[in-house]
Amino acid sequence: MKTDIEIAQHAQKQMKPIVEIGAKLGIPAESLLPYGHYKAKISATYKNSVSKPAAKVILVTAISPTPAGEGKTTVSVGLGDALAKLGKKTVICLREPSLGPVFGVKGGAAGGGYAQIIPMEDINLHFTGDLHAITSANNLLAALLDNHIHQGNILNIDPRQVVYRRAIDMNDRQLRFLTSGLGGKTNGIPREDGFDITAASEVMATFCLSRNLADLKENLSRIVVAYTYDGKPITAGDLQAQGAMAVLLKEAFDPNLVQTLEGTPAIIHGGPFADIAHGCNTIAATSLAMELGDYVVTEAGFGADLGAEKFINIKCRKMGLNPSATVLVASIRALKYHGGVDKAN
Amino acid sequence: MKTDIEIAQHAQKQMKPIVEIGAKLGIPAESLLPYGHYKAKISATYKNSVSKPAAKVILVTAISPTPAGEGKTTVSVGLGDALAKLGKKTVICLREPSLGPVFGVKGGAAGGGYAQIIPMEDINLHFTGDLHAITSANNLLAALLDNHIHQGNILNIDPRQVVYRRAIDMNDRQLRFLTSGLGGKTNGIPREDGFDITAASEVMATFCLSRNLADLKENLSRIVVAYTYDGKPITAGDLQAQGAMAVLLKEAFDPNLVQTLEGTPAIIHGGPFADIAHGCNTIAATSLAMELGDYVVTEAGFGADLGAEKFINIKCRKMGLNPSATVLVASIRALKYHGGVDKAN
Amino acid sequence: MKTDIEIAQHAQKQMKPIVEIGAKLGIPAESLLPYGHYKAKISATYKNSVSKPAAKVILVTAISPTPAGEGKTTVSVGLGDALAKLGKKTVICLREPSLGPVFGVKGGAAGGGYAQIIPMEDINLHFTGDLHAITSANNLLAALLDNHIHQGNILNIDPRQVVYRRAIDMNDRQLRFLTSGLGGKTNGIPREDGFDITAASEVMATFCLSRNLADLKENLSRIVVAYTYDGKPITAGDLQAQGAMAVLLKEAFDPNLVQTLEGTPAIIHGGPFADIAHGCNTIAATSLAMELGDYVVTEAGFGADLGAEKFINIKCRKMGLNPSATVLVASIRALKYHGGVDKAN
Amino acid sequence: MKTDIEIAQHAQKQMKPIVEIGAKLGIPAESLLPYGHYKAKISATYKNSVSKPAAKVILVTAISPTPAGEGKTTVSVGLGDALAKLGKKTVICLREPSLGPVFGVKGGAAGGGYAQIIPMEDINLHFTGDLHAITSANNLLAALLDNHIHQGNILNIDPRQVVYRRAIDMNDRQLRFLTSGLGGKTNGIPREDGFDITAASEVMATFCLSRNLADLKENLSRIVVAYTYDGKPITAGDLQAQGAMAVLLKEAFDPNLVQTLEGTPAIIHGGPFADIAHGCNTIAATSLAMELGDYVVTEAGFGADLGAEKFINIKCRKMGLNPSATVLVASIRALKYHGGVDKAN
Repeated sequence: MKTDIEIAQHAQKQMKPIVEIGAKLGIPAESLLPYGHYKAKISATYKNSVSKPAAKVILVTAISPTPAGEGKTTVSVGLGDALAKLGKKTVICLREPSLGPVFGVKGGAAGGGYAQIIPMEDINLHFTGDLHAITSANNLLAALLDNHIHQGNILNIDPRQVVYRRAIDMNDRQLRFLTSGLGGKTNGIPREDGFDITAASEVMATFCLSRNLADLKENLSRIVVAYTYDGKPITAGDLQAQGAMAVLLKEAFDPNLVQTLEGTPAIIHGGPFADIAHGCNTIAATSLAMELGDYVVTEAGFGADLGAEKFINIKCRKMGLNPSATVLVASIRALKYHGGVDKAN
Repeated sequence: MKTDIEIAQHAQKQMKPIVEIGAKLGIPAESLLPYGHYKAKISATYKNSVSKPAAKVILVTAISPTPAGEGKTTVSVGLGDALAKLGKKTVICLREPSLGPVFGVKGGAAGGGYAQIIPMEDINLHFTGDLHAITSANNLLAALLDNHIHQGNILNIDPRQVVYRRAIDMNDRQLRFLTSGLGGKTNGIPREDGFDITAASEVMATFCLSRNLADLKENLSRIVVAYTYDGKPITAGDLQAQGAMAVLLKEAFDPNLVQTLEGTPAIIHGGPFADIAHGCNTIAATSLAMELGDYVVTEAGFGADLGAEKFINIKCRKMGLNPSATVLVASIRALKYHGGVDKAN
Repeated sequence: MKTDIEIAQHAQKQMKPIVEIGAKLGIPAESLLPYGHYKAKISATYKNSVSKPAAKVILVTAISPTPAGEGKTTVSVGLGDALAKLGKKTVICLREPSLGPVFGVKGGAAGGGYAQIIPMEDINLHFTGDLHAITSANNLLAALLDNHIHQGNILNIDPRQVVYRRAIDMNDRQLRFLTSGLGGKTNGIPREDGFDITAASEVMATFCLSRNLADLKENLSRIVVAYTYDGKPITAGDLQAQGAMAVLLKEAFDPNLVQTLEGTPAIIHGGPFADIAHGCNTIAATSLAMELGDYVVTEAGFGADLGAEKFINIKCRKMGLNPSATVLVASIRALKYHGGVDKAN
Repeated sequence: MKTDIEIAQHAQKQMKPIVEIGAKLGIPAESLLPYGHYKAKISATYKNSVSKPAAKVILVTAISPTPAGEGKTTVSVGLGDALAKLGKKTVICLREPSLGPVFGVKGGAAGGGYAQIIPMEDINLHFTGDLHAITSANNLLAALLDNHIHQGNILNIDPRQVVYRRAIDMNDRQLRFLTSGLGGKTNGIPREDGFDITAASEVMATFCLSRNLADLKENLSRIVVAYTYDGKPITAGDLQAQGAMAVLLKEAFDPNLVQTLEGTPAIIHGGPFADIAHGCNTIAATSLAMELGDYVVTEAGFGADLGAEKFINIKCRKMGLNPSATVLVASIRALKYHGGVDKAN
């Protein structure tokens, strides 16, 4: 039996240029911003001018998770491929993986076996740089905040009440809790600080729940970063940070187009964790997919009781979405595991 | 008089697709990995098979710097454009800017006025993600190091003698000196720590002085990160980190092709600071430029006494390079400034 | 109406030399180690050789406390004075105050009004130096522990699992949580650390619950200070610290003799907090008082549900004590306060 | 040959009660505040009413120090004993040792062999509590300073510019550099902080250079503890700390009377380090000794080039003192050592 990587590397040889995948959805080459020959961002300026019936959105979720994962992504990819094989204009919408877990135990987030998104390796590494942009925007806000306090602190921010955390796209426990601003008068203000993994950052959640760039900027400005000595909240907007943050996120905000092993278009965009955030791909990507395809297969992180709830109650409300169907993945392994069978079986 | 940005934005309309720029140098489209339509990485697999005389390398340096900069980059771009206008096959080789100073006082590193590299805004923001990749690789090593200590410290590393620092592509004084690994037993090991700006990081210097991927991996493995309790040095190789670091850097290691306002090919790759590191673009880029063009115009950071010395003594020795000519920029303003005239004049 | 201090300062003029107070209890001058003319330590070498019936111990406790205190100490002093006036050989046994709260809101711990122990000011300041000695012994153990880790850590102590805290006889919130051992290789090992007020320190509790110097040394050696990387407890004894600690505590371990305003002998010795520790004076003092007097009036901190419980269940068991009577102080103010009447009334 | 401790312990048996030593100098018993039977503080209220010629002050210093010490103290004690044997009314004036080095390599500061001050063990441990009082006063100021910042910081103090350090009477490298005020909003303000050994503290120097309690209070109020955000110095006086500090120091400020093995009166008071501070006993003690005796033998720490210079230029100027003679100790060992002979010889 071949490993995922062997399958992916073999398939790579038959990968179609991304302009061909775009063409399947009617996107002209000039509206695709290529990243190499097999990945592209779909320009925010692109609008589908052809009228068509509303897309049907299918949510893939699962029963309670197991340590090995549930098979949601492979089911999503397989279902998308199947619909495409039936001749339906189908778009698969998934989250993009963070670098962090890639170097950890779990492996990437692009499916597995013959139900994969490719080029897998690229997707699992830097991809089109979205997570780097989100990390930068997140940390720019932190730097502006600390710089504000350092430069005289006109807003009267209490350094002990900074609630905003820095981000890094890496599993690095060493940075979770730290004291920053040491080294004397010229090197910031001493305070308790810390890094979250980018997928768990405030900017990632904001990025995924914004409808367009203007909405993103507005939402960024409302992030609460600290409290004043007299208990008033301070937002990114109070620091006038949202403009520079949006500049850093502008390119990243365009959804990413790739393909399955069978050539079905897949939009991979945004990757918030499902435990700490809401665990779905971006509203921008799902909206665009609905504009492009007749069937949109998407996924919500973790089990139905957590991820699907968040999908329905947060993402759907936010974008006015009514999914047409929900697939509940219940693998034999998960049923056995939750029924008390030993993990090793 | 138009501002740099106005000139750049106007020029953007006449920008040539990057495949046309590549074609000027004989690079086929399939050897270019596009990032949008106006930036590309030149694939490491590309080799110029046409025999040609050895390229002449022209170094642009300057007298002692002034706060406003010397004009080295504008001279480099202007000289490159002039040689191209004379019909010479010319490649300009410059450093890529870090995000950090972009949001600071100084502005980007892509020239100015009519002697600019475009698309300026892209170059000054995420560009093709090289600095993000370098930041990631740098921080992966730090995370592996701290994880090694946390997991039992078989190498007997003294946490007080970690000499390797984390990196962030941002001007953030708050992170210069910190205590990391706080928060109890499960969150790392308490130690004094800190971040440098990516342009000043160890991995940036290593990246720029490596001849090819194999050499990069070897050089990465030799980075000293800490000392043991009994004073022995510990390298990235001791932590077996170089493989994963090289994976993160693989794509970034391909040089980036862009153009001047006049359509002259420019390779922008690597951006070490000239004070703390050696201040020149990558050996990989300069070597490739020499393979592609007849004239290569390049630049060394800071004044001749610092940057040009480092170029000659470090980079030239490392790659076996003999520059054919050196241009010494001596602006009227710099002469006046160093002659004691008030800065405002 | 006179303030406590006015009363105390007036009474000071009629204070009897401490040798006279000692003589009331049959202690010869050579067994008293004077601290000035009105305070003395009773030498550990002193033994009452006259046989007498077993002393009756009266515990003074109170209903739930109010912010202003309950009046336990004034009742104890008053009751002692009354018994003495009836011709009973009486000794009052109380805790000695820590410096900390003296400079805070609450005031000292030597009673009030005409039911005071004097010289009040001395007692509330350094007194005979017991709290300083306890602070020193506590911090010596901390220094030996950190020095052990610094010098090679043969015991394999995990600096993240140090559970022993430093002590200071002061209300200083700034020292509660800190990172110590910063400043590079020669200045200790970075770790999370902190200070407790001496009254809440481990050594204070140990000091008060030890029967004699040998028992003290044994108990000190059993203090758990940290855990190894593989989870084994490390004690003061493993660090061979108990000897030096006992040297620092030797003089302090002798109980302190002072007097009430009416000249009744009072032994003031040991001052653990009642919330975090057991809240009674030393076993050494109570035992000596029972040897010297026929009636011993003592007090347990906080309310009956906390302090008296601890007195009965911890101190009495430890020293084999059966109190003959318990006085429960229930002031009108406390009854009203707990009945819901506004604090101001 | 007997060790210092054996000699001291043997001599202890022949020690004279401190009232007898006081009587030699004409001090009545009521002006002595005894600490046990062999140590006393001389009350600040005591004034010698008998007119007598001005005392002659003899300074004992030495050539450059060796690791083992120079013999200054043994010479001082021997010289004092000799003068006394000649029938001269002599007082020896020395520094009191800190606890810190006692548990380190060097041993105490009370002389050695048959030229010792006794009771040696008491002097080397808590003695009469002076160092504890100085430590408390020093740390009270630190606590008041941090509390001021914590409570609203009306004085606009920059926590990064606190120059005042805490003190502990112990060799504890772990506390030299730390970050304090961690643990969130209720536990102070995060800042870089640290402890000095008490002998090197600001309050120790101030204590030793003050002429009387009023002068001490005034000098304490002038200690600079921090700077404001706009660079103005903040003193203990700005924090109104000097009153409470002086209360803590009041008793300690009375000089301590002990004796040599031969019964010569010795006043041991104040113990600043000679490298970081001025290295002599208190002005109060030297003044009192001059009032009491005809010959006063005193000592300055370290070599003549450091300690004697500081004695002459700082202490003598401050108290208007003209020493009558200087003894320069030049041991054979020191001469050999500085002449290049191996340390072991």
